[in-house]
Amino acid sequence: MPKNRHEIEPIGVIHSELTNLVNAPRQGDEGGYEAWLTLTPQVAPGLIGIKVGDKLIVLTWLHLAQRDVLQVHPRGRLDAPLKGVFATRSLDRPNPIGLHQVKVLQIEGQRLKVTPLEAIEGTPIIDIKPVLTQINDR
Amino acid sequence: MPKNRHEIEPIGVIHSELTNLVNAPRQGDEGGYEAWLTLTPQVAPGLIGIKVGDKLIVLTWLHLAQRDVLQVHPRGRLDAPLKGVFATRSLDRPNPIGLHQVKVLQIEGQRLKVTPLEAIEGTPIIDIKPVLTQINDR
Repeated sequence: MPKNRHEIEPIGVIHSELTNLVNAPRQGDEGGYEAWLTLTPQVAPGLIGIKVGDKLIVLTWLHLAQRDVLQVHPRGRLDAPLKGVFATRSLDRPNPIGLHQVKVLQIEGQRLKVTPLEAIEGTPIIDIKPVLTQINDR
Repeated sequence: MPKNRHEIEPIGVIHSELTNLVNAPRQGDEGGYEAWLTLTPQVAPGLIGIKVGDKLIVLTWLHLAQRDVLQVHPRGRLDAPLKGVFATRSLDRPNPIGLHQVKVLQIEGQRLKVTPLEAIEGTPIIDIKPVLTQINDR
């Protein structure tokens, strides 16, 4: 059983007009918010090769989540049976990592404007990856 | 700029016949390895609702990665121009989180057999999420 812990250091932060969880859509494709990914100067060389129009996966640290929750009512519906958090996209989970698929709208130095992004203002960014072509897209 | 660090505690570990990076395919769909996700007893209630046949996203901590690498030659080809790690799926990156889309083949208590998974034996698991239906699949 793995006992060792690992330390994540944010590579940037999300700037968005979305400032609280109450107004946040539950998934990016239900909202359509535009947001800026502001990377730290230290990691800026890691952005080389990203172009406007690219599809990216943004990983965030959902800093307001509860880490001791293991089961939830899906989408907050109390009449739905409890489900394990790993069978849902609940924000609350042991390691609250958000997974967001976005498109790049604009690039300004170490800032990327993307859409749609349902994470709120101030959410730490922990990784960015390109979307790989799906097998069935080939 | 976010200064605070966050601590990740693995929720389980990967058991695979793949034991070293040299033999590891670069992406899951290039290999087709089967592997077991062995969750810790503490988080087992979080698996309720996962069924055989489900498509999941497994997030791992790529414990052998180099965290100080910001640019790489894509797919190790030295004749290709350097790219930022955030424009590639390089294992080496500031927060080495692996993203794997798999299908559940078998469930035994807190263990899930999945395929395809290119992560090696002993890789820590940090989160599991269901694959959401893509907009263009609707």
